Amino acid sequence: MPKKVVTFGEVMMRLSPPGYEKFSQASSFELVYGGGEANVAISCAYLGMKAAHVTRFPDNAIGKAATQFLRKHWLSTEHVIYGGDMMGKYFLEKGAVHRPSEVIYEREGSAFSLIEPSMVNWEEVLKDADWFHWTGITPAISDGAAKCCLDAIKTANKLGIMVSGDINSRDNMWKYGKTMQEVIPGLVKNSDVVITSSRGIREMFGLGKPEDNFKDLAKQLIDFFPNVKKVVKKTRRTLSASHHQIQGKLWNGKKYIKTDMLNITHIIDRVGTGDAFAAGLIYGLLHYKDNEAIDFASAACALKHTVPGDVNIVSLDNVISLMQGDTSGAIKR
Amino acid sequence: MPKKVVTFGEVMMRLSPPGYEKFSQASSFELVYGGGEANVAISCAYLGMKAAHVTRFPDNAIGKAATQFLRKHWLSTEHVIYGGDMMGKYFLEKGAVHRPSEVIYEREGSAFSLIEPSMVNWEEVLKDADWFHWTGITPAISDGAAKCCLDAIKTANKLGIMVSGDINSRDNMWKYGKTMQEVIPGLVKNSDVVITSSRGIREMFGLGKPEDNFKDLAKQLIDFFPNVKKVVKKTRRTLSASHHQIQGKLWNGKKYIKTDMLNITHIIDRVGTGDAFAAGLIYGLLHYKDNEAIDFASAACALKHTVPGDVNIVSLDNVISLMQGDTSGAIKR
Amino acid sequence: MPKKVVTFGEVMMRLSPPGYEKFSQASSFELVYGGGEANVAISCAYLGMKAAHVTRFPDNAIGKAATQFLRKHWLSTEHVIYGGDMMGKYFLEKGAVHRPSEVIYEREGSAFSLIEPSMVNWEEVLKDADWFHWTGITPAISDGAAKCCLDAIKTANKLGIMVSGDINSRDNMWKYGKTMQEVIPGLVKNSDVVITSSRGIREMFGLGKPEDNFKDLAKQLIDFFPNVKKVVKKTRRTLSASHHQIQGKLWNGKKYIKTDMLNITHIIDRVGTGDAFAAGLIYGLLHYKDNEAIDFASAACALKHTVPGDVNIVSLDNVISLMQGDTSGAIKR
Amino acid sequence: MPKKVVTFGEVMMRLSPPGYEKFSQASSFELVYGGGEANVAISCAYLGMKAAHVTRFPDNAIGKAATQFLRKHWLSTEHVIYGGDMMGKYFLEKGAVHRPSEVIYEREGSAFSLIEPSMVNWEEVLKDADWFHWTGITPAISDGAAKCCLDAIKTANKLGIMVSGDINSRDNMWKYGKTMQEVIPGLVKNSDVVITSSRGIREMFGLGKPEDNFKDLAKQLIDFFPNVKKVVKKTRRTLSASHHQIQGKLWNGKKYIKTDMLNITHIIDRVGTGDAFAAGLIYGLLHYKDNEAIDFASAACALKHTVPGDVNIVSLDNVISLMQGDTSGAIKR
Amino acid sequence: MPKKVVTFGEVMMRLSPPGYEKFSQASSFELVYGGGEANVAISCAYLGMKAAHVTRFPDNAIGKAATQFLRKHWLSTEHVIYGGDMMGKYFLEKGAVHRPSEVIYEREGSAFSLIEPSMVNWEEVLKDADWFHWTGITPAISDGAAKCCLDAIKTANKLGIMVSGDINSRDNMWKYGKTMQEVIPGLVKNSDVVITSSRGIREMFGLGKPEDNFKDLAKQLIDFFPNVKKVVKKTRRTLSASHHQIQGKLWNGKKYIKTDMLNITHIIDRVGTGDAFAAGLIYGLLHYKDNEAIDFASAACALKHTVPGDVNIVSLDNVISLMQGDTSGAIKR
Amino acid sequence: MPKKVVTFGEVMMRLSPPGYEKFSQASSFELVYGGGEANVAISCAYLGMKAAHVTRFPDNAIGKAATQFLRKHWLSTEHVIYGGDMMGKYFLEKGAVHRPSEVIYEREGSAFSLIEPSMVNWEEVLKDADWFHWTGITPAISDGAAKCCLDAIKTANKLGIMVSGDINSRDNMWKYGKTMQEVIPGLVKNSDVVITSSRGIREMFGLGKPEDNFKDLAKQLIDFFPNVKKVVKKTRRTLSASHHQIQGKLWNGKKYIKTDMLNITHIIDRVGTGDAFAAGLIYGLLHYKDNEAIDFASAACALKHTVPGDVNIVSLDNVISLMQGDTSGAIKR
Repeated sequence: MPKKVVTFGEVMMRLSPPGYEKFSQASSFELVYGGGEANVAISCAYLGMKAAHVTRFPDNAIGKAATQFLRKHWLSTEHVIYGGDMMGKYFLEKGAVHRPSEVIYEREGSAFSLIEPSMVNWEEVLKDADWFHWTGITPAISDGAAKCCLDAIKTANKLGIMVSGDINSRDNMWKYGKTMQEVIPGLVKNSDVVITSSRGIREMFGLGKPEDNFKDLAKQLIDFFPNVKKVVKKTRRTLSASHHQIQGKLWNGKKYIKTDMLNITHIIDRVGTGDAFAAGLIYGLLHYKDNEAIDFASAACALKHTVPGDVNIVSLDNVISLMQGDTSGAIKR
Repeated sequence: MPKKVVTFGEVMMRLSPPGYEKFSQASSFELVYGGGEANVAISCAYLGMKAAHVTRFPDNAIGKAATQFLRKHWLSTEHVIYGGDMMGKYFLEKGAVHRPSEVIYEREGSAFSLIEPSMVNWEEVLKDADWFHWTGITPAISDGAAKCCLDAIKTANKLGIMVSGDINSRDNMWKYGKTMQEVIPGLVKNSDVVITSSRGIREMFGLGKPEDNFKDLAKQLIDFFPNVKKVVKKTRRTLSASHHQIQGKLWNGKKYIKTDMLNITHIIDRVGTGDAFAAGLIYGLLHYKDNEAIDFASAACALKHTVPGDVNIVSLDNVISLMQGDTSGAIKR
Repeated sequence: MPKKVVTFGEVMMRLSPPGYEKFSQASSFELVYGGGEANVAISCAYLGMKAAHVTRFPDNAIGKAATQFLRKHWLSTEHVIYGGDMMGKYFLEKGAVHRPSEVIYEREGSAFSLIEPSMVNWEEVLKDADWFHWTGITPAISDGAAKCCLDAIKTANKLGIMVSGDINSRDNMWKYGKTMQEVIPGLVKNSDVVITSSRGIREMFGLGKPEDNFKDLAKQLIDFFPNVKKVVKKTRRTLSASHHQIQGKLWNGKKYIKTDMLNITHIIDRVGTGDAFAAGLIYGLLHYKDNEAIDFASAACALKHTVPGDVNIVSLDNVISLMQGDTSGAIKR
Repeated sequence: MPKKVVTFGEVMMRLSPPGYEKFSQASSFELVYGGGEANVAISCAYLGMKAAHVTRFPDNAIGKAATQFLRKHWLSTEHVIYGGDMMGKYFLEKGAVHRPSEVIYEREGSAFSLIEPSMVNWEEVLKDADWFHWTGITPAISDGAAKCCLDAIKTANKLGIMVSGDINSRDNMWKYGKTMQEVIPGLVKNSDVVITSSRGIREMFGLGKPEDNFKDLAKQLIDFFPNVKKVVKKTRRTLSASHHQIQGKLWNGKKYIKTDMLNITHIIDRVGTGDAFAAGLIYGLLHYKDNEAIDFASAACALKHTVPGDVNIVSLDNVISLMQGDTSGAIKR
Repeated sequence: MPKKVVTFGEVMMRLSPPGYEKFSQASSFELVYGGGEANVAISCAYLGMKAAHVTRFPDNAIGKAATQFLRKHWLSTEHVIYGGDMMGKYFLEKGAVHRPSEVIYEREGSAFSLIEPSMVNWEEVLKDADWFHWTGITPAISDGAAKCCLDAIKTANKLGIMVSGDINSRDNMWKYGKTMQEVIPGLVKNSDVVITSSRGIREMFGLGKPEDNFKDLAKQLIDFFPNVKKVVKKTRRTLSASHHQIQGKLWNGKKYIKTDMLNITHIIDRVGTGDAFAAGLIYGLLHYKDNEAIDFASAACALKHTVPGDVNIVSLDNVISLMQGDTSGAIKR
Repeated sequence: MPKKVVTFGEVMMRLSPPGYEKFSQASSFELVYGGGEANVAISCAYLGMKAAHVTRFPDNAIGKAATQFLRKHWLSTEHVIYGGDMMGKYFLEKGAVHRPSEVIYEREGSAFSLIEPSMVNWEEVLKDADWFHWTGITPAISDGAAKCCLDAIKTANKLGIMVSGDINSRDNMWKYGKTMQEVIPGLVKNSDVVITSSRGIREMFGLGKPEDNFKDLAKQLIDFFPNVKKVVKKTRRTLSASHHQIQGKLWNGKKYIKTDMLNITHIIDRVGTGDAFAAGLIYGLLHYKDNEAIDFASAACALKHTVPGDVNIVSLDNVISLMQGDTSGAIKR
């Protein structure tokens, strides 16, 4: 019986010029949908898990099409809420070598940003779930979204469901009157697994001395939030827009585990790689020991760099093969 | 020396599934830009006039790309204002035969809707213009847009520039606290040419007895607004989404002129056909007598049904040829 | 609570040259999936019903992609069976005016053709269904498919579920040793609603005198199979590959009902229009009286001619609007 | 043993904006190749004949690609000559309804225009041919092309090969110092079959009284050129760019034959339809009696209007079916 | 006078999602045709040789289109046989970096697999050939295909034509009751040039001691099959799906020759690179000494990695330039 | 107030097969426009300068479309001249790794090549300019073009406008009776900034001893042409078609400055990179000191390798960021 993950967050329409065209060259946009949390759910589904996503879409053909995208990629969508007028959106121009990719968001006033706690019955949503995952983007969007997220976490705690949070957030996203320092700790408090970075731990919680490394900071985080069992990080070395290196790190309260560096020499699509890591981590922690789990997460993350779109739709076989060290990408017949 | 037209209004990004795909089938969108007033300016430019458009776009690569679209289609864009975050947008699904085209708007909170009168120096903008054109959509968008529009009309009056208004508006667009009945008459009062319909005259101004036809109503409109010299209408017979018939009608205070019916048997793109009519009317009134002007306007309108996108980019030759009765579309080598 | 329809049959990969290209011109194929019965289920889903489809796909990424197509278009796919090596396929070259569309099938040895009765638990599949629909194509494919179909019908009878059959079949499809005259009657015997044609009734069951019309033949069919309550036909007048006319006819044992002729002047995609009719009939009979049901079916059928692909994905609103006589296809904003 | 046709003339690269885009909208061009005479050869090849084309292409990858296009469409290309720098070209913008298609030629200085009689060994080229076909375009291009064409005709006469000429030409094409009235008669003199129009006969040869109809003119043409056995014409009624009607007429010295009018209600590509007629005529005269031959030619012509590109690649079955009166375009499975 | 190569084998339709899309993302397929032996023939044709391919296609528009693909790429196709119903097919999903390309075959029951020796007259086919090439795939497909292949080799021997075999085969392809060990040796016995690998020699013929290297094994192969004059191998180092290294090795009975390693840092299409090597070897052995021949083969192979599709369509100049050490890929104007 | 640059030269239509297709595979061409000098003007415009380009296009829809391309990319086009029949053209096939890109020109007889000095009023054109830029391609095209170029330079001198020349030229372009050695020196004499190479200085002016390096040659050039203030060079190391390295070098009469080597590991489009360098140099010399100017030029050049098309449309921010050493291409949100 496969395990089930539930995620919650905004799904945006992603519009990107074909190939390496810049915005000023485009006469069409490639259309997919994506959002940090749904990306995680879809990755998990492709790995063989059951997965449902909760979000809110406008009640029109665009909102329906977004739902259909989630259904196509194996998600349960019976808890999608319809209402509001605008679909959250982002425009993505893909860079290469020294030229950065550029992202322009249009998510103010979106259907999701107007979500209210009363719109979701979390007991119903989570009743057969094994894992709930949230990110630091959701509470940044609106007070309603933040409250929904907290409700979900509390319900998960009550039902004995594991909770993970990918807590990174950007200051400039918080426009509704609260700061991330005010809101995120309340969500982390009840989470079991935290994905973050050294800078994240310092900025968000004010922890750490200047000389502390990630392991030191992770320890302090667990001291501060005793419910947290694992603190995880993905190190990215950005050699160019076309070439990254990835390494996973995990502190589980006892052991500090680092994966080998994976060398992604020809990036196809860099977006959603963090979500692929999170999904790999969830799958990994549910099916492997910690050292393998972090290897699995890193492999999943590396593979996403070669898949167009936001979501990591590689197979379990692909991830296991890379996790076990086959970096050859040799053709499969 | 060509005549110059200036227009003012929102330009939206138009996103449409390729061909006859429905929204639920699209994996890409065709991308053009359009808006009632800019469509008029561009049509006029293709006919050989000088043309400038005033609008407001977000100050990012998307807003720049929209400006570049206007420049490409021959408009002067030195009076485009940059600011705000969101590009107005509409999604268009193209129908056929019994299946209607469907349009979904996303224009709330757009850069243009936040325009303020202080942002435009109309004396500067209009200094070398011969004609100013507005539509009933602009004052519906926001109080700022309505005020800007009124400023433009008044400045045009002061500078002795002709003013035309395509005054049709939809009740459900007026969301900022005023009704069209409160705002539109103030704009019509100072206009020289009014494009409208029988229903428009009745609803907007409360004129007319039940038995009055368009000619009767047009007369009453001129009685009511003595500055108005011509009242013009385009009758559309919608046989199916693929087949329309078009006829122009004009009352100039003395004569009531009707064109022949034009039979558009294979529609390529129905959007912007009213704007093509308005542009044809402006060009026509500047270069022909009234009876030819309305023929020219109808021909321009008919031709737009066969051009993809919002804007009528046919040549002056094409319009003249159809206006003179050549409906054969015979290949030009 | 929406009604639920279950369908059973092969779903093929459909490969077609873009636009009006002929096979010899294509350097790419547009890819969708379709099959008579799944087309019906998807149509019903877009109209608001619950819908599940039972079929068999190869257990590889192609089979998964086919399932994802069904999921995207709202079907329940939990009863899809995986096994075998080959995906059934058809190539479609789209004609126009005097040039016929051409279809080339490759379905021999497909995963579906190797289906066996033991692979489906019909009691489980049909447990919450209101309607089961089959077509004359399925029993033509293989003995296993025919037996599965009979099992489904019998289970539906047992569970008190309505059964409809669109019984048309082509002689040259029957290659496994049985004729349609041997197999189809056994399936019709237990069906409630039969969609067929005059020629179908004559050829399949040997009924009718030369001078009998459809109404006469329908009566005889009901006399012959007393379980059948309604005999339905769609008349198609093929003026050219681009222009058809459609009329629905229904005999319900008491009344002979004919719809108005619908005139489809600009065909976009002619495939799947019969399935759209069947879906419309199912929805119609579940929600309307017979005379409205056949109007609904004809309207649904007419609309499909304007939708690319095999499946009729128009909305309930579209069908109702056409059924009520609005043939204008006027743009919806 | 299939009959063999040989043709001679320029093949141009055809560049057209996708769909109904105008030149000012295109960001890509669809690429095919075409030219009146090669179009005829390819049509004949698809009907089952052997066919070779003689032309001259630049000796680079573009010239090779043009040859490959001819090879793909079944022509023998062993007599293609390579040399010169420029590929002849035309740009095609596709019109609809009242909007004309527009063609822009760039053929001055092309590789073909620099052809010289010494470059072709006609005895070798024509040794196993049954038919040679030329058009009035070739002698207009250059003195060298005209001389090559005359050589070909004379060689064909010597070898007892039938010669047909589609003699229409446009005055404005003749730029190298000779007029069509000076050159064409010398070519017609040795031809067996002439495709022309009433205007063509009047303008080219100065024949006819004002009141003469096509039959009268055809008679005079045969009187004037006793070698000519058949004079053929295709009447086109241009209702709009999307809707034409076609009728074939043939005078064979004894009988005047007219086909039924074929009604092409939804034109896909109007270019090359005259060439399809010529090819149909050649095939028809080689395989049928005159009255069927002209029916065959008209059917082939009508079908070309529904095929994208310059060349008529429909099957023999398609033409026969339409020639026999099946205008339904009913789908073939 | 160019040399002529003849090849024999299945040609499949290749269907691949655009760019780096995975199967689950595709809404269209790019369409080309390919097969090991035809790929060799086409490569040779682009290098300037004459080339013919013998295969069997279904007798429908798809089979014709496949033939047209071969014709376009310069092959003689007069010996293509038509019959059967199904086109062999493969689906290709293109990988990158750590993500493998994936291939799904559908070739059971294909037109080619049903080929019988009586269908080909090899004396006629090979009458003006200089070289015959076969691969280990063909005898794996069916007994008929294996027998045809043996007939071809024997006829070539009789006519004094050189024979090369690229003998690699995959165990899991042999489904008709014979093993590769039973069939391949009979074909190798009469071949002059064998392309294989160390593993191939061990598995196929049971030769070699554990410590033997390729040179040792090649010697033993020639001892075993005295007709074989050259044993050739291509070493591939798979750094990732995007980066391979290639080296050619040749034993000619006297000398063991190794080329420099070629470093293909940005792979565009990895399929058909072995066939490009074989074609390069054939051209090389016909036009150069052995040490240059293997350099030529390796250069041809390396270039194929940068050409989309199955076939190596680079020019002779390109291969010579790389063979002579110019790895710069500097732009040619 | 932004500085204004004016450029003069041919703009060609660029036609390229999609992606990495070779000419023989293309069924469509991607369409952009480009030419060395206009590329420089457009780059400058994207960096924030005012920019105008003077050229000549055919007076038809193709010439208009070319103008619209320039307008879209922010150029002033009021001095474009219309006349002549043919658009200059080049075909570009994009290579990778060891496979060279290939370019085929068709520019003989183009509208631009027929330009005459009397067609341009340089005093008017240059009246508000700060910089005039020319290249060694223009004087190679025709005597008229060379004379126009000289007129422009002299007028610039008269008006005190800076003049730069990118003087590289190819011998085989000079077909109208003069050599580059006869014409270029006259243009260089009046220029302030010269972009060239060691070989260029040797070949064009006969300067230098065998052992002289670029710095030595640059000194001699300035001695020879005292008006020249800066001699600049871009060194390119071509590791493969996919991987280049770039370094800028500048001699300003006093100091010899070399930039760091920029490593472009994944080239998207190599065309126009020299023009991007020239534009960067112009912007740099106008806004920075020499050492920064050459850094800016190199950064602009490097970025162009990652932008499809001829023109460098990156933002000022992108260039500054790379010039300051951020080679990471990290995503911008």
